[in-house]
Amino acid sequence: YSPDFSERETLYTHLNVFEQFNPVIPDSLRETPFVFLANIGPELQLHVLDQMKKPEFVAMDTMNFWIERSYYAVREVIARVDGLIINDEEARMITGQKNLIRAMEEIKEWGPKVLIVKKGEHGAVLLLDDGFFYLPAYPVRDIVDPTGAGDTFAGGFMGYLASADEITPATVRAATVAASALASFNVEGFGVEKLKEISDENIRQRVEEFQKMTCLALDR
Amino acid sequence: YSPDFSERETLYTHLNVFEQFNPVIPDSLRETPFVFLANIGPELQLHVLDQMKKPEFVAMDTMNFWIERSYYAVREVIARVDGLIINDEEARMITGQKNLIRAMEEIKEWGPKVLIVKKGEHGAVLLLDDGFFYLPAYPVRDIVDPTGAGDTFAGGFMGYLASADEITPATVRAATVAASALASFNVEGFGVEKLKEISDENIRQRVEEFQKMTCLALDR
Repeated sequence: YSPDFSERETLYTHLNVFEQFNPVIPDSLRETPFVFLANIGPELQLHVLDQMKKPEFVAMDTMNFWIERSYYAVREVIARVDGLIINDEEARMITGQKNLIRAMEEIKEWGPKVLIVKKGEHGAVLLLDDGFFYLPAYPVRDIVDPTGAGDTFAGGFMGYLASADEITPATVRAATVAASALASFNVEGFGVEKLKEISDENIRQRVEEFQKMTCLALDR
Repeated sequence: YSPDFSERETLYTHLNVFEQFNPVIPDSLRETPFVFLANIGPELQLHVLDQMKKPEFVAMDTMNFWIERSYYAVREVIARVDGLIINDEEARMITGQKNLIRAMEEIKEWGPKVLIVKKGEHGAVLLLDDGFFYLPAYPVRDIVDPTGAGDTFAGGFMGYLASADEITPATVRAATVAASALASFNVEGFGVEKLKEISDENIRQRVEEFQKMTCLALDR
């Protein structure tokens, strides 16, 4: 991480146990309706997906390591999921487009109905069936530990969707803001210590603040 | 400029005519209520400001060159204006704060009621008397020439405020979104060519799009 946590560099990727990992999904979990394919190799992601029975919504993460090493397999997973969550650098890398808007429009054409591009301290951009949506990062004064912010975001996002009545662009936007509020607590403490202290009400408050910080229509 | 126009580097600053410039404001203009002190040396900005008679709203721009060379004079101008428009790098430089939120809170304490920090392709952040406000950059697919985007923004911002009934945080937020819509047209053409073609209606449309792209409350 850079001194202000706004940038990071991957020094090594050690696959360790994942090198030989062959995930078998227990029968009891194969009908799980909301599936998140976290950042493992695309072949493993496909292997997991093949074991699932008609999931309602599948989202995935990936990273530069897999984009470089297994480009076509990554593309294959993207074509099969409903939602893709990546960062801006990965979106540019996977398309070769320098302009992020163009990169996102290209990825959207590969299939996913929901494309979420995270930009760290600059928030996130969504491209959905009805257009772009922007949200800032919650203004955090003391970043203690950004590790896991992306996974917290993904977890909050999937959890929100799973509790929603139906999945529409409007639900997806609301899920993203809620997930972003959740992730903002994550970076304020080491590991998950802060997340263990907060309640639904704390998250709701930040969602409301997000709205006040972006909507002219809600003008105070 | 970098290939995608997201970054730029100042190779030289030639003051040229400004080296010996001593602006004298004609009597007929000294009562102008809305004053923008564009990016000239802070001593000159103060000299211009001293000639004005009770302006209603004064805003200023500055840059790294002046922050390094005339730090205390820049601070003196900031203490005397209502609005400061700078970029994120300058906000960090002038405060020595790496965290942008903290940098903005520190600058706000120096006096200006309106602090606007531009972040290029990542939009802008405002700190007003009632808190933070974020707006994205309009998603432009083909950036032809970003030169002058900052000045277009400042001009649109001051023009909007000058036409408003009163200056409140709500008016300032609306002015920023309108100015940002205007500046988004500027970068789509070389020089001011695109600005000469557009109408109020074009700007209004983009302001509306801005709102749809950020407001859950306005959900389509």
